[in-house]
Amino acid sequence: MKLSAEAQVELDQARSQSHTTLRPTVAALEAQMFLATPVLDHGFVRLVDYMGDDAAVVQAARVSYGKGTRKRLEDRGLIRYLMRHAHTSPFEMCELKLHIKMPIFVARQWIRHRTANVNEVSARYSILDREFYLPRPEDLAVQSTDNKQGRGSSLSEEEAAAVLHLLKRDAEQAHDTYEGLMGRFDLARELARINLGLNTYTQWYWKIDLHNLLHFLRLRLHPHAQYEIRVYGDAIADLVKLWTPLSWEAFEDYRLGGTFLSRQGIDLVRKALRGQSVGRADSGLSKREWKELMEVLELDPDTEIVGPGPAAT
Amino acid sequence: MKLSAEAQVELDQARSQSHTTLRPTVAALEAQMFLATPVLDHGFVRLVDYMGDDAAVVQAARVSYGKGTRKRLEDRGLIRYLMRHAHTSPFEMCELKLHIKMPIFVARQWIRHRTANVNEVSARYSILDREFYLPRPEDLAVQSTDNKQGRGSSLSEEEAAAVLHLLKRDAEQAHDTYEGLMGRFDLARELARINLGLNTYTQWYWKIDLHNLLHFLRLRLHPHAQYEIRVYGDAIADLVKLWTPLSWEAFEDYRLGGTFLSRQGIDLVRKALRGQSVGRADSGLSKREWKELMEVLELDPDTEIVGPGPAAT
Amino acid sequence: MKLSAEAQVELDQARSQSHTTLRPTVAALEAQMFLATPVLDHGFVRLVDYMGDDAAVVQAARVSYGKGTRKRLEDRGLIRYLMRHAHTSPFEMCELKLHIKMPIFVARQWIRHRTANVNEVSARYSILDREFYLPRPEDLAVQSTDNKQGRGSSLSEEEAAAVLHLLKRDAEQAHDTYEGLMGRFDLARELARINLGLNTYTQWYWKIDLHNLLHFLRLRLHPHAQYEIRVYGDAIADLVKLWTPLSWEAFEDYRLGGTFLSRQGIDLVRKALRGQSVGRADSGLSKREWKELMEVLELDPDTEIVGPGPAAT
Amino acid sequence: MKLSAEAQVELDQARSQSHTTLRPTVAALEAQMFLATPVLDHGFVRLVDYMGDDAAVVQAARVSYGKGTRKRLEDRGLIRYLMRHAHTSPFEMCELKLHIKMPIFVARQWIRHRTANVNEVSARYSILDREFYLPRPEDLAVQSTDNKQGRGSSLSEEEAAAVLHLLKRDAEQAHDTYEGLMGRFDLARELARINLGLNTYTQWYWKIDLHNLLHFLRLRLHPHAQYEIRVYGDAIADLVKLWTPLSWEAFEDYRLGGTFLSRQGIDLVRKALRGQSVGRADSGLSKREWKELMEVLELDPDTEIVGPGPAAT
Repeated sequence: MKLSAEAQVELDQARSQSHTTLRPTVAALEAQMFLATPVLDHGFVRLVDYMGDDAAVVQAARVSYGKGTRKRLEDRGLIRYLMRHAHTSPFEMCELKLHIKMPIFVARQWIRHRTANVNEVSARYSILDREFYLPRPEDLAVQSTDNKQGRGSSLSEEEAAAVLHLLKRDAEQAHDTYEGLMGRFDLARELARINLGLNTYTQWYWKIDLHNLLHFLRLRLHPHAQYEIRVYGDAIADLVKLWTPLSWEAFEDYRLGGTFLSRQGIDLVRKALRGQSVGRADSGLSKREWKELMEVLELDPDTEIVGPGPAAT
Repeated sequence: MKLSAEAQVELDQARSQSHTTLRPTVAALEAQMFLATPVLDHGFVRLVDYMGDDAAVVQAARVSYGKGTRKRLEDRGLIRYLMRHAHTSPFEMCELKLHIKMPIFVARQWIRHRTANVNEVSARYSILDREFYLPRPEDLAVQSTDNKQGRGSSLSEEEAAAVLHLLKRDAEQAHDTYEGLMGRFDLARELARINLGLNTYTQWYWKIDLHNLLHFLRLRLHPHAQYEIRVYGDAIADLVKLWTPLSWEAFEDYRLGGTFLSRQGIDLVRKALRGQSVGRADSGLSKREWKELMEVLELDPDTEIVGPGPAAT
Repeated sequence: MKLSAEAQVELDQARSQSHTTLRPTVAALEAQMFLATPVLDHGFVRLVDYMGDDAAVVQAARVSYGKGTRKRLEDRGLIRYLMRHAHTSPFEMCELKLHIKMPIFVARQWIRHRTANVNEVSARYSILDREFYLPRPEDLAVQSTDNKQGRGSSLSEEEAAAVLHLLKRDAEQAHDTYEGLMGRFDLARELARINLGLNTYTQWYWKIDLHNLLHFLRLRLHPHAQYEIRVYGDAIADLVKLWTPLSWEAFEDYRLGGTFLSRQGIDLVRKALRGQSVGRADSGLSKREWKELMEVLELDPDTEIVGPGPAAT
Repeated sequence: MKLSAEAQVELDQARSQSHTTLRPTVAALEAQMFLATPVLDHGFVRLVDYMGDDAAVVQAARVSYGKGTRKRLEDRGLIRYLMRHAHTSPFEMCELKLHIKMPIFVARQWIRHRTANVNEVSARYSILDREFYLPRPEDLAVQSTDNKQGRGSSLSEEEAAAVLHLLKRDAEQAHDTYEGLMGRFDLARELARINLGLNTYTQWYWKIDLHNLLHFLRLRLHPHAQYEIRVYGDAIADLVKLWTPLSWEAFEDYRLGGTFLSRQGIDLVRKALRGQSVGRADSGLSKREWKELMEVLELDPDTEIVGPGPAAT
């Protein structure tokens, strides 16, 4: 990912002008201001602005004057309490603004999150750059057999090369046509762009509050999310860790790393911890549901009885 | 709860006019159309309209023509899968419209759910009825000692009577003043109403999709929700059970009756089921967090080690 | 636009099953239930469900029992009053559910409306049909010179043919590759689809309330909206006219056919109607702003003075 | 409005700690940070945080690197263009966070704006201060005769005194009871508070983007808005003027000070400016609609014909 000379000048200028403010400031995040973290072959995540910090979550939860924070330990306890009990509104009091460049098929998944503010480059107005996403060979994989919307093992080196050749050929031809339509025929941009592929890069400004951002990350960092959006999630998560470390820690403990157990699942666990056994047949769960529960509990999916001590199989 | 004669005429008329439609129809819900379920002393929940049914969830998930449903068993499995994996958008394809009458302090909690459509009676425009909420004696309770925003044991009969006397006296006086301000002084309604108490009844039309309704119910049916809004949740839940029984069942199993375990909580459970012991000190949880976890697992809150077989205490 | 045999069966079945309901029903809309209105070369708008009617707007505005409507003339007056004074919440009490098939570049504009519920076909899960949008020759046009995001005059017949040849060639090749990637290499669907063009058709279920639908239509029926989304707006508008004719009439009079005049614009009009003259120099408007105002007033854009009687030029 | 000693300490501390930031900073707004503007007898509006400035609107509209702004004149022109043509998303890129204290009946109107983040003091958890709104004598007015939800002329001095006596008496008694219920009976806070009046003060943190804030102001600065919320609108408008002066100016010209003319209204204006006459009978407007139009055009409401030159009456 390389910036144009003009973009680089703008960026350098922005990074050179510091100001004095009474607003809460996060030093670790200031160090990242305006810098682009490369993602995929031409994409990036770039921090443009932020509002609030961990203390702002506490301040809002307490509806207090000034900062409203107390000792760090107390603040941490409150933030964990809020996260644990899904008191989400104080996390809405922090806001992040990013400049993101990503392939259109990624943007299409992304935009489904409706609780953000978005300004996207318009291909009715502007001419899109000749940039399209080509996966790394190792990221090309066959259709998954057990997950109908996922990918399985990687292609062989030869297959990957053949696939990339085709992807590249079509993308280049589509872009040649795009340019030719506007050049040779003066075709309206809004029409010419319909020839571009879904792997073409677009970009937007994206602004979202911390609560909704964490919800976005929870879905997009999930192993079932498509790899090409997950890497954007990773880049954004790195910023959140710097920005609101206490909220992030609580999020990891109580959301990201946690698990939802069904009524039947928690019932089984409670019984097992009390020394009782529960068999699949009595669980009220279908085969598939039981199998998913065994996986969550990190037991052998073929386990038929869960009981005290080492799970019977 | 009694309707005015005029309201009763309107209602009877509405119930007498049936139509033919090609839209999905739920017979069990049709039987409830326009009827008011009494809630608290003067409130109600009244079904005004609905869109969709369980099949509409399946239809949207499949983006199919016609109804898109298959065998009942397959549909049930899909609905449970969607609920389990938080694929929430198909549940947004059903919509419920209710007419609700409730005390203003209940309306104030209710309105915090922003994803609904609301039309409330305006006290700038209309004169509010002389109706205010007085709890039943058994619902009057002392401040909870362990839950800073809850209630504990009930008042004695004498105390309850004394409290109700005061509540009634103030509400009646406030309403007398309200009427007097408008009558004797012709004071603008928007000013006179500022004298009314938070226990005065208001009413609104409320329309919400099934996904957001289930989220509302999850929060408002929670034991920590205030009793006076929980009873509205109960009345609405009864309608949802009739309307979308498969979605409700999945909601009960995977949301309402389920539990979120933290990273540390599920780690502990996994270890215990494998025959290992986990002590509080090694859990990475604070005392309070550990205690809440023990409660979720239905173990003695003072348990210090959780291990194979009956939990050690 | 042709349905598959399977889809046709599903559709016929849905149209053959009528039910009895106490809910408000709109006969003119029932006649359209499940039918697809063709849009563009392979797209459609298909009515799936609706909630409410004009009377439901009135009912919510009055927070009334039963239907809450009075004489048709009174209801019409109230609906016009609500629209005129932007009392939008009663219009949120009606809801429409559509099944729509459209090119991806149209879906990308459409999804920017965040206040709707959407379930889209997933190309991670399903294989997309071999259908892509090719404009009619007369819809191919050059870039507009005065509207940076619009189109100007049509291409010549030869140019159009040449352009269509290119669009078709690239789309077919991209689709061949798409199929080959999945067939020959068993490439995961989520990867293969990145080779498809923005003119590929997708489809979704889309549910929205009347207020937000009218806002959508106001933007998408605007002459500056891209033709390819405007035609969907037209098809939906035809349904709204059948569904809520009074609301539509008010919308046409007070929103769609009306105009917003700026502070300076209304000031100029008031002066002119009182017999005073206003010149561009005194208007406080820039040249461009003045020119746009003259166009709104349907005066010669080069007019320099607006005054009593026929506008001076 | 007086802060508690503790609040004052917190506030002074916050105002004494300035930081260095690379984020856009607005000097005029920094001067207002944390300061409370008194509103009504005990309320206030207090600036807690902000994100962005006029340049951030331009930056997002251009999806540019760095600040993306050019000459001030160009930026002003773009902002005015965006406002004029309702391109609202760039204005969503600025965010304001306020701490507000207001009577509950004001909060009830306020919360109807759903596109904001809110954290309100909970009376289930905290004990509310003994503060309730008493209008100034000159703000007490009779019910309006032509606006069913407004107020007309002021009460006489004697009447105002009598009204205030009643309002004060009831509010004090209600608060005495509130304290007594919690003190003497240890009644749960969530129950005791139902006795309080709608004029009791509450407070919240409120965070909103500039687009939605301007929409809020447009409705709440309207002459038909209740006086007691309008004064909060005034206090917030003063902050917006300092924060984003170019956006505010465009808002005043194109929204606040402008007018929406109906299809019939703009048709009449166009004809009159071309030298034609339009009579009420031919206008297609009802009497009421015609009268409202005459008022918008600042003509005598009884005018029957609008034509060239001074309007005929």
